[in-house]
Amino acid sequence: MTEFSWLARVYWEDTDGGGVVYYANYLKFLERARTEWLRARGLSQREIATASGILFTVVDLEIRYRKAARLDDELRVTCKPRYEGRVTVWFDQQVLRDDELLAEAAVRVACVNASSFRPTAVPEFIAKEFR
Amino acid sequence: MTEFSWLARVYWEDTDGGGVVYYANYLKFLERARTEWLRARGLSQREIATASGILFTVVDLEIRYRKAARLDDELRVTCKPRYEGRVTVWFDQQVLRDDELLAEAAVRVACVNASSFRPTAVPEFIAKEFR
Amino acid sequence: MTEFSWLARVYWEDTDGGGVVYYANYLKFLERARTEWLRARGLSQREIATASGILFTVVDLEIRYRKAARLDDELRVTCKPRYEGRVTVWFDQQVLRDDELLAEAAVRVACVNASSFRPTAVPEFIAKEFR
Amino acid sequence: MTEFSWLARVYWEDTDGGGVVYYANYLKFLERARTEWLRARGLSQREIATASGILFTVVDLEIRYRKAARLDDELRVTCKPRYEGRVTVWFDQQVLRDDELLAEAAVRVACVNASSFRPTAVPEFIAKEFR
Repeated sequence: MTEFSWLARVYWEDTDGGGVVYYANYLKFLERARTEWLRARGLSQREIATASGILFTVVDLEIRYRKAARLDDELRVTCKPRYEGRVTVWFDQQVLRDDELLAEAAVRVACVNASSFRPTAVPEFIAKEFR
Repeated sequence: MTEFSWLARVYWEDTDGGGVVYYANYLKFLERARTEWLRARGLSQREIATASGILFTVVDLEIRYRKAARLDDELRVTCKPRYEGRVTVWFDQQVLRDDELLAEAAVRVACVNASSFRPTAVPEFIAKEFR
Repeated sequence: MTEFSWLARVYWEDTDGGGVVYYANYLKFLERARTEWLRARGLSQREIATASGILFTVVDLEIRYRKAARLDDELRVTCKPRYEGRVTVWFDQQVLRDDELLAEAAVRVACVNASSFRPTAVPEFIAKEFR
Repeated sequence: MTEFSWLARVYWEDTDGGGVVYYANYLKFLERARTEWLRARGLSQREIATASGILFTVVDLEIRYRKAARLDDELRVTCKPRYEGRVTVWFDQQVLRDDELLAEAAVRVACVNASSFRPTAVPEFIAKEFR
């Protein structure tokens, strides 16, 4: 199976005064790739929230920054689910520039009720994509 | 009457690769000052949204950037309402570093229904602060 | 001449607690479209900064917010230069969802020296694209 | 020794369409607290960059999100260095609302040359604060 990836261009908004992408902004790129991974399976986050009353929320995150991304770089962000259980799923993700690894992350996402934010089982029509 | 102002420190998050505050981020400083102007009158945006079912949303904005703010700068952001009508209010705002004017803005805010986003009259307990 | 436009998808990062795109984040979409307008003419902002020692910085901005953009929306951001003089140029820009106008802006950009931030004439190889 | 902490107010800019603080924005709060921890020791990041030609850059980050922060919350962000070696230092950090733990993080920061981004020893006048 080919790995899912999504392109992200680095704009001024992403950089900081050190001339490189600000460390928090990699998390935006990671989230775009997860959202597009879902969309590629026909799942829109807005529709999920409206129709199923659930949200996905990040509960754990580990990220290793290896090399700095810079203005105008075109980044490729990968996204691979790792099944864990009824409520949570891990995503293994990488940020690459050409074949150079800039950052790698493991992101644990939990399914929660959209109003109470209490953990709840991932609905089956989504869970089957995680396994 | 002394003018209301609120301090904002410039962190890495606010700067861009040019070494100065990114132009969109001044709007965050402006919004913090408006929020604190309200809070100084005993009005919390969250409580307003919950209790009255309304939100304030920016409908017009003019900003002139005169000098660049930089990392570690301590900025003073002013906020002065200018009464307009039942639904909207203008805020005249400045961003200063010591006595140096870095940016000045006029921001027109409208009161809207929190779910429909339709314009609605500002409730009297808030409107009296605008006049 | 067909108008230049650039697509921007709305992600969680762009929205705020009101459920719509945060007002400052439209400025990011506008800047992406200006950057891509330049790139479509073979001009990269990083190369310009490195090779010519200049930066473009926003000096004036007017924006009218008409309708709210929401999570998952695909926005089309236009960008049309309006010639002004040796140092500055206006960009007329719109943010649309399908054919619906969500926001329109006029953004005045000045050419400055990348280290001193003093205004300087736009180099001819760029200026010819503005006329 | 009392633990260092820094207050951060949650504004609209920090929230997302789920009504809570966007996960990447906690990293901004963490970074503010690290910057202020340095400042409390008489060290300004801008002066360090200018005078010593070094920057601090995050190389590893682990964060556990436990409870959601919301609009208007006043957060207390702690910052405690954990000595590691000549080039890197860990910061143990927490984000609290009153006494409730919302998030906890370990952030590994490396000292790098400000232009080459190559790892370099932390200058002694800063290193002594880490031990």
